[in-house]
Amino acid sequence: MTYCAGILVDDGLVMIADTRTNAGIDDISTYRKLHIFEWPGDRALALCSAGNLSVSQGTISLLREGVRNPETGELETLETAPTMFRAAQLVGWAVRKMVTDMKPALDEAGIDSGASFLFGGQIRGGPPDLYLVYGQGNFIQCSEDIHFLQIGEHKYGKPILDRAVTADLDLYDAVKLGLISFDSTIRSNLAVGAPLDVCVIRRDVLAVEARHRVEADEPYFRELMDRWSSALREALQSVAPPPYGPHRG
Amino acid sequence: MTYCAGILVDDGLVMIADTRTNAGIDDISTYRKLHIFEWPGDRALALCSAGNLSVSQGTISLLREGVRNPETGELETLETAPTMFRAAQLVGWAVRKMVTDMKPALDEAGIDSGASFLFGGQIRGGPPDLYLVYGQGNFIQCSEDIHFLQIGEHKYGKPILDRAVTADLDLYDAVKLGLISFDSTIRSNLAVGAPLDVCVIRRDVLAVEARHRVEADEPYFRELMDRWSSALREALQSVAPPPYGPHRG
Repeated sequence: MTYCAGILVDDGLVMIADTRTNAGIDDISTYRKLHIFEWPGDRALALCSAGNLSVSQGTISLLREGVRNPETGELETLETAPTMFRAAQLVGWAVRKMVTDMKPALDEAGIDSGASFLFGGQIRGGPPDLYLVYGQGNFIQCSEDIHFLQIGEHKYGKPILDRAVTADLDLYDAVKLGLISFDSTIRSNLAVGAPLDVCVIRRDVLAVEARHRVEADEPYFRELMDRWSSALREALQSVAPPPYGPHRG
Repeated sequence: MTYCAGILVDDGLVMIADTRTNAGIDDISTYRKLHIFEWPGDRALALCSAGNLSVSQGTISLLREGVRNPETGELETLETAPTMFRAAQLVGWAVRKMVTDMKPALDEAGIDSGASFLFGGQIRGGPPDLYLVYGQGNFIQCSEDIHFLQIGEHKYGKPILDRAVTADLDLYDAVKLGLISFDSTIRSNLAVGAPLDVCVIRRDVLAVEARHRVEADEPYFRELMDRWSSALREALQSVAPPPYGPHRG
């Protein structure tokens, strides 16, 4: 299992991914799932993967080598894509090729060849953008109504993002919210685990502003969670009790 | 789909259930899933159900009529069970009988006969207790480490309970938390919906202290959610920004 989340606000983009992979519950490893493609001053891109590890690693290798445009036959790369939309198409073509190549053999063995990606960033001349690319190569993007996207084990971490992510959110408040969303998930699903990789791309900087690996025992991460739990308890007590039961009337 | 949650704290028990049932997304109805069995001064019991509606309704009817003890052949009821453990066994026997009777025909039609229950309350002479009874008739109970149990669509609503439910929680703070947990779920899964049924059983009262149906537009419910969202935003800003990025040093 995996959990990755991307948050796109007015000020830019935050991407966070866990690093746990498992084949069963007794074969657990740490693999990087957040990959950065950066040409400072021109573009800063981040890609998070979930699903079959061979498919997602192969997709990333293809993207580094160049992906063949299915219409022109030309090799294209993330470095030369003129827009975020074209870059997202490249991710889609790459994963489609990997799945097509590997699916017959994996199907025979009863192994799921599914993979999905969060792909975000900014290319000079266009706005920051965030996409969810499916294993079939199609993709959706953040909109004026939806300011975050998730892949993998998304349910535990969704309510906090639903309640608190707005377009005007500070970029590092988005990092805090993302970390809380991950903590909610890690507490409930053993197949999602630290360390976590965090990447921050501020609007119009065209470079990665922060990249950081959060270890499970990092003091800031632990303090954030302790303070958050205290703040929740205080918030709870600040709301009036329900008007049914002994408090009524 | 369904979501039901039970919270067992030192002061007593809170049970909440939604009322939405669906066969597909175009056949949605409202059915009560929280059932109260009360003999004031002697016992107060509450049962929430998830899963196949015919199985869960049949189980509740059997419990009202009396369930045959598989060892003695005697009819036993929730009114006469001497302990919460025996009462939970009755729930288990009843659901086991319903599933056994109905499974062959349902299997033929490809219909899931699964059902599960939250069963809680207090019987004179014993402490309050809360059980999760599976469709196979076996059950687990709350412990000194776990103060809540859930059935149905449980993931969205679990993190808030994980973070904030403690044994010393006020009974009506538990109601508030339960409602927040339901709101988190309702926002994300159309198959869980208001109205919600709430039941509060205070320790050693041996009667239901509060029973209430929360409609989607109830002013208290709406205000609780608005205040909660504001409190989260304030809590977020009260925590220091991460020591990576432009805030470092």
